[in-house]
Order: sequence, then C-alpha cells, then structure tokens
Amino acid sequence: MIADRIKSLVESIPDFPKQGITFRDITPILLGSRLSYDIADAFVQRMNEDVDAVCAIESRGFFFGMLIANRLGKPFIPIRKEGKLPGMTHSHTYDLEYGSSTVEMHANVLNPGDKVLVHDDLLATGGTAAAAGEIVEKQNASVSAFAFLVELTDLNGRDKLIPYKSDLITLAEY
Amino acid sequence: MIADRIKSLVESIPDFPKQGITFRDITPILLGSRLSYDIADAFVQRMNEDVDAVCAIESRGFFFGMLIANRLGKPFIPIRKEGKLPGMTHSHTYDLEYGSSTVEMHANVLNPGDKVLVHDDLLATGGTAAAAGEIVEKQNASVSAFAFLVELTDLNGRDKLIPYKSDLITLAEY
Repeated sequence: MIADRIKSLVESIPDFPKQGITFRDITPILLGSRLSYDIADAFVQRMNEDVDAVCAIESRGFFFGMLIANRLGKPFIPIRKEGKLPGMTHSHTYDLEYGSSTVEMHANVLNPGDKVLVHDDLLATGGTAAAAGEIVEKQNASVSAFAFLVELTDLNGRDKLIPYKSDLITLAEY
Repeated sequence: MIADRIKSLVESIPDFPKQGITFRDITPILLGSRLSYDIADAFVQRMNEDVDAVCAIESRGFFFGMLIANRLGKPFIPIRKEGKLPGMTHSHTYDLEYGSSTVEMHANVLNPGDKVLVHDDLLATGGTAAAAGEIVEKQNASVSAFAFLVELTDLNGRDKLIPYKSDLITLAEY
C-alpha cells in the first residue's frame, strides 16, 4: 500500500513551526527514488479524467507536481507566493489564523475551458488549495482534481474544496 | 540545440524584482513537457560521473532537480531557506548586495564521501550555489557537479564555485 509506505517515512515534529502545531515532514520520502516514482504513478492512476495542465503550489508542491506533469506529458504551472512571478498574474488572497496570504499564477498560461490538476504536498486547512481553485476559475478553467500526498483529516480542509466540484486524491491520511 | 530551445522560451523582464536587474523567467519552459523531459536528459548526459544524490535549491531548483533525481534513480535533497526544514540542519550564511541570506539542508541525509549534483535554475552571482557547496562539504561529502539551466556569464558566478573542484554544467548562457 502506497499509504503505508508514505506514512512509514513522514516524520511528525511537535510544535513546529510554532507551539501546538504538529508538522508533517515529507522530505524523507524524497530520499527514495523508487517511492517517488511510485507516488507519481499513484496520482496518475487515481485520476478520473485527462487534464490540460498540472498546477502545483510553492514550494513543496513543486516536488511531485513536476513529476506528475512529466508523467502525463502536460504543461507544469507553478502557483507562487506573492511577488515571485515577473509577468502579469492572477492572484487570490485568503485568510490565515493571523493575517492573510496571497498566491499567484501567471496569466495567459491556461485557456478557457482547460481542466487542471492542482497539487500540493499536504491538505491541512485547505486555504491555499482553495485559493488555487479561485485562481484557476478566474481564468474560466476548472479544477478536475486536487491531489495531495497527505491529508490532515482533523482540519476538514476538504470542505473548503467542495465549491470546485473536483475530484480529491489523497494518498495518505492522518 | 537545447540551448536555443531554452533561450527561445526564457523571458527577460527588465527592472524585476528591482531597478537595474533583468530577470530571466524560466517558467515558460515548464509549459512544454517534451522540453522539460529533454532538459532532464541533457543534464544527465553531461554528467561525467555517477552521483549519490541530487541536491536542489529552493524554489525554482526544485522543478528540474526532482526530474533529474528521478531520472538517475537517486535521492532528492532540498536545500531550503532558513527555518523551513524541521529537523536538525546544516546551514550556511552568505552575503548579498544588501544584507545576507541563509540556506539549510537536513543533517544525516548525506553520508561521508558522497558525491552530489547541486542543481538550481540560474547561475547568477553564485552566492547561493557556493553556500550549497559549503553545506555539502560540512558533511564530508563533495559536489561532483553544479548544474544550471541558465548562466548569466557577466556576473562571473562560476568563479565562486572554483573552490569546490566540481564540474559545471550549464545548458544556456546569457
């Protein structure tokens, strides 16, 4: 089971980056090239329809996002933190526990009607993934599926993704 | 020629992120999955010896770093900005034009004697790549090769990499 292989390597670090948060560190997974290969495969196998592009969220989403795009033979589109992309962008700002955050995607990289896969390493509260969904829909494209390596189920992040009427692929849950 | 294919897609943005800097945006390259595939191949073909791991620098180094590691069947090790890696780390601080910056790698992911490929998208002044070299050597490992998609030759970044006695692979130059 891919879930077991992932969970045997994810390290749980209490109180990082701050008190009360248990951080799930996926970087040990990246040390096993065979597992990384199988993870990219697992994402592709669980997709219910073809996509026109793979969008991945900075920075840990870039690890598997690029592998998935390459496996599918589709464009890779980075969704980055504010101010990192030099061209015209679409952006969306969302609330955090304290303050807010903004993510951006280059404009003119999606076509109207495109279906995309949105990938990140972790589904936690769902705020960043939902912001990615907003940016995709601003371009008259749609999210075919959200794909995460790990879902933290207690945080109910998947509820925030309901408006996008997308498939949800998660390979391991805590 | 891979260099021509890369340069036909890199966009040059004057005065980004600040006045006087011409930013080279590689993200259009990522839209072509065939080119991304060929770029990973080109890096692998130009390597003169096997490596034990691929280290890539946050965040744009993650795009091709992960593809190269997967192609080689070797561990992928992210080198991240300060405070992002939750475990014990090795770090190195280096001077920027104004102020300084610190990059980190998890400890205990390299073994003494390991040879690594260090990848980033762009070789500019070489400060970040040299910091990566310092971190690798702190672990009694060595940099077999630095590999960049694009080199900005006017900035002489390659001079900063001489102390590491590594190969230097660059696919396109400005």
